[in-house]
Amino acid sequence: MRHLLSTLDLSRADALAILDTAEQMAAVGEREVKKLPALRGRTVVNLFFEDSTRTRISFEAAAKRLSADVINFSAKGSSVSKGESLKDTAQTLAAIGADAVVIRHGSSGAPARLATSGWIDAAVLNAGDGTHEHPTQALLDAFTMRRHWARLHGTDSAGTDLAGMKVVIVGDVLHSRVARSDLWLLRTLGAEVTLVAPPTLLPFGVESWPCTVSYDLDEALAARPDAVMMLRVQGERMHSAFFPSVREYSRRWGLDDVRLDRLDTLGLEDTIIMHPGPMNRGLEISARAADSPRSTILDQVSNGVSVRMAALYLLLSGESSSERTLQEQKR
Amino acid sequence: MRHLLSTLDLSRADALAILDTAEQMAAVGEREVKKLPALRGRTVVNLFFEDSTRTRISFEAAAKRLSADVINFSAKGSSVSKGESLKDTAQTLAAIGADAVVIRHGSSGAPARLATSGWIDAAVLNAGDGTHEHPTQALLDAFTMRRHWARLHGTDSAGTDLAGMKVVIVGDVLHSRVARSDLWLLRTLGAEVTLVAPPTLLPFGVESWPCTVSYDLDEALAARPDAVMMLRVQGERMHSAFFPSVREYSRRWGLDDVRLDRLDTLGLEDTIIMHPGPMNRGLEISARAADSPRSTILDQVSNGVSVRMAALYLLLSGESSSERTLQEQKR
Amino acid sequence: MRHLLSTLDLSRADALAILDTAEQMAAVGEREVKKLPALRGRTVVNLFFEDSTRTRISFEAAAKRLSADVINFSAKGSSVSKGESLKDTAQTLAAIGADAVVIRHGSSGAPARLATSGWIDAAVLNAGDGTHEHPTQALLDAFTMRRHWARLHGTDSAGTDLAGMKVVIVGDVLHSRVARSDLWLLRTLGAEVTLVAPPTLLPFGVESWPCTVSYDLDEALAARPDAVMMLRVQGERMHSAFFPSVREYSRRWGLDDVRLDRLDTLGLEDTIIMHPGPMNRGLEISARAADSPRSTILDQVSNGVSVRMAALYLLLSGESSSERTLQEQKR
Repeated sequence: MRHLLSTLDLSRADALAILDTAEQMAAVGEREVKKLPALRGRTVVNLFFEDSTRTRISFEAAAKRLSADVINFSAKGSSVSKGESLKDTAQTLAAIGADAVVIRHGSSGAPARLATSGWIDAAVLNAGDGTHEHPTQALLDAFTMRRHWARLHGTDSAGTDLAGMKVVIVGDVLHSRVARSDLWLLRTLGAEVTLVAPPTLLPFGVESWPCTVSYDLDEALAARPDAVMMLRVQGERMHSAFFPSVREYSRRWGLDDVRLDRLDTLGLEDTIIMHPGPMNRGLEISARAADSPRSTILDQVSNGVSVRMAALYLLLSGESSSERTLQEQKR
Repeated sequence: MRHLLSTLDLSRADALAILDTAEQMAAVGEREVKKLPALRGRTVVNLFFEDSTRTRISFEAAAKRLSADVINFSAKGSSVSKGESLKDTAQTLAAIGADAVVIRHGSSGAPARLATSGWIDAAVLNAGDGTHEHPTQALLDAFTMRRHWARLHGTDSAGTDLAGMKVVIVGDVLHSRVARSDLWLLRTLGAEVTLVAPPTLLPFGVESWPCTVSYDLDEALAARPDAVMMLRVQGERMHSAFFPSVREYSRRWGLDDVRLDRLDTLGLEDTIIMHPGPMNRGLEISARAADSPRSTILDQVSNGVSVRMAALYLLLSGESSSERTLQEQKR
Repeated sequence: MRHLLSTLDLSRADALAILDTAEQMAAVGEREVKKLPALRGRTVVNLFFEDSTRTRISFEAAAKRLSADVINFSAKGSSVSKGESLKDTAQTLAAIGADAVVIRHGSSGAPARLATSGWIDAAVLNAGDGTHEHPTQALLDAFTMRRHWARLHGTDSAGTDLAGMKVVIVGDVLHSRVARSDLWLLRTLGAEVTLVAPPTLLPFGVESWPCTVSYDLDEALAARPDAVMMLRVQGERMHSAFFPSVREYSRRWGLDDVRLDRLDTLGLEDTIIMHPGPMNRGLEISARAADSPRSTILDQVSNGVSVRMAALYLLLSGESSSERTLQEQKR
């Protein structure tokens, strides 16, 4: 791996290498001193063309725990907004000494252009691009699911995949980079995915995607999923004619208290509830659902740091073999 | 101590523990290498819902001198402004690995809600909430006064309190969290406090506060205070009908050159002049007063770093006994 | 050296000391672990009254590679904008423990006022003030030219100057602090400078400056320069009646493809093309010129980090002798 751009082109071996390394990173987080010297002297630049405090902070915490130096670059109000090209911005960051560029961009494909153009040597990590992908989000979701799946089966997470796990993803799939990244990765790891959305919020060509598609959340829950992932509703889209009203959305596609209780009625005691955050409590998810013992929402946030540590570590340690792990490195 | 939320509920023992530890931190600041490894691997998040560069920088410097990692989170333009609840924001920060959350918030009581709700394990430090409290400001003020008081009496600061010291606090007490935090702490430490303000800028019920109240600054100065603390005038309030005009305020409640000279006339050679900053020179305080040898205004800023180091250290080192000090730790 | 304020008053010995130290810093950048412990425990504050992400990031990277703690202070929206004076802001930063203040300010002379007023003990580094100076930019330009000049002559950079090198600087000299800082430094180092600009964009009194002045870029290129520095066009000035239209500017004063090819025709195979960035590709410089093998634009960015490391190191290591270098320190 040179870059982390998407989950669509992430091999099973590389995905497992990240997840397994993340398990080791999580173990570090539980020690008294949580820092590793692994990336001392390396510089990670957070290049954010869109605001995303959560993702930026998670990458910043991950890089600092590996002892890297972090430089935050909010592209708003910078020379970028004065018309500098992405190429010049990127080359400037590389010339300043960036070893990794974590990029969030409003345009789908911007991170890939950065990585494949030959402009820079630095590792590029996609922190969300347009409606395209958000691979570290998918990896933290997979990490969270894998821990649950392993616990259910009484096995160890490391090395295992999600074969046979049934996952439902609910919401505005049309605009969601999270839904796309999750789908590709979950398929690679052997899970079965059902996408549930209002008909107007499904992308063209979704019928050729490797998943089941449904308009009906209740039907999807009746199929006994192991995980239900609720997507964030983008408030600013709710005024579009293509979007259901808030009330209708919440009633038909929200994980409200009624549906939460139905999970019990259906005997789905081991089904977890997931959300990438930030939540609109009362809209796509009820407060009770978000705070229920089924919820893994905060685990997802914690796991995000471990997964990003793993990605930075594997990309910046400069080894291409996906077999290589932190442990081997240390021997 | 688990959190630092207010000075109203800060015990005398805990207050003295912070002040004594701050003395040791100040001594570190005078060494060649000013860093201590005490909080290495710990993460301090500055969660600021209001701009306050001074306070943020002071906490950031304090945390870094203790080798903690610092993550700045300006809540403007973040998911918080997209409607995320304080609870979800806080839990996200905790899940990312925050060991301490330094919070500045426009609503009185927000830090206490964060600390006492059981939402997070992290230590919460109130960096100013609404018109409620600003405890680290009060602690740095008390630290500055205590050093002055000890010097006057030829004693060592450590372990002593402010018994018998007379302090005048002047300005918009109604809206001032600094006045409140100062008053509670100064009383705990044995000082006698007089609040001086325009009648319309005193809170309801002030007559039951443990202090003297006056509308007349000259009268208060004639009572021979040991310290005079001028509060910052909030320019945006000066247009309110409840507030005196700028000219009237300055003439009646400002520490102008005439009053500065009167301190000499009164033979108050050891009376110090304080201000929490940023100052409106020429409004609540004259330039000559601000720069006079009586002024401890810059000492307050320096002491702020020591006090915040002490607070972070005591909260994050995880011991509950207020007797414990840095020195004991090192043995 | 106590401060770095301008190149006009920078002695030849101090300039060479910075450039020679920067060579050593550049060598550090090529090692596996790029950090030096030289400024551990020191605090560098970036005090930016104007946005300049590039310059701020370059100083931040430089300081961190020397293991200093960096605090970023964007003066927008801070108490400064609430009317606090530069003096009070600076003294506050010093009281918080700043060992160096890197200042970018819209008013010419602000850094010098900070440094010479006796307000603070910290070292002051001018990161660009009004239309006055931008000394670290000039130093990185000189560093880049010196490496080129030494390579051409088969000598080692260290200790040498630019005697006999011919440099053309092209653009809005009237408003350019870069042009001023470059000119003074290049003269000190022995280079010969030609300024080329539209007549309305030359300052009054330019005829007394130690350089040749021309309105004609083609004439200046015909004089066979060793380096051609294109200045950035400030788009917001293009609407002024004093400024040529974009099209006219680009045709007469831009380094377009025609002029790029003419360098070959003229047999100027060793002439380099420089630009301080960010570029307006297609306006003052064509994309082909910017990306040609002659271009040192990215070298300038890299060298900027080395030069700023050198400046911070020399100022904060506290020795006044300009002869002292990193190497001597290490013995």
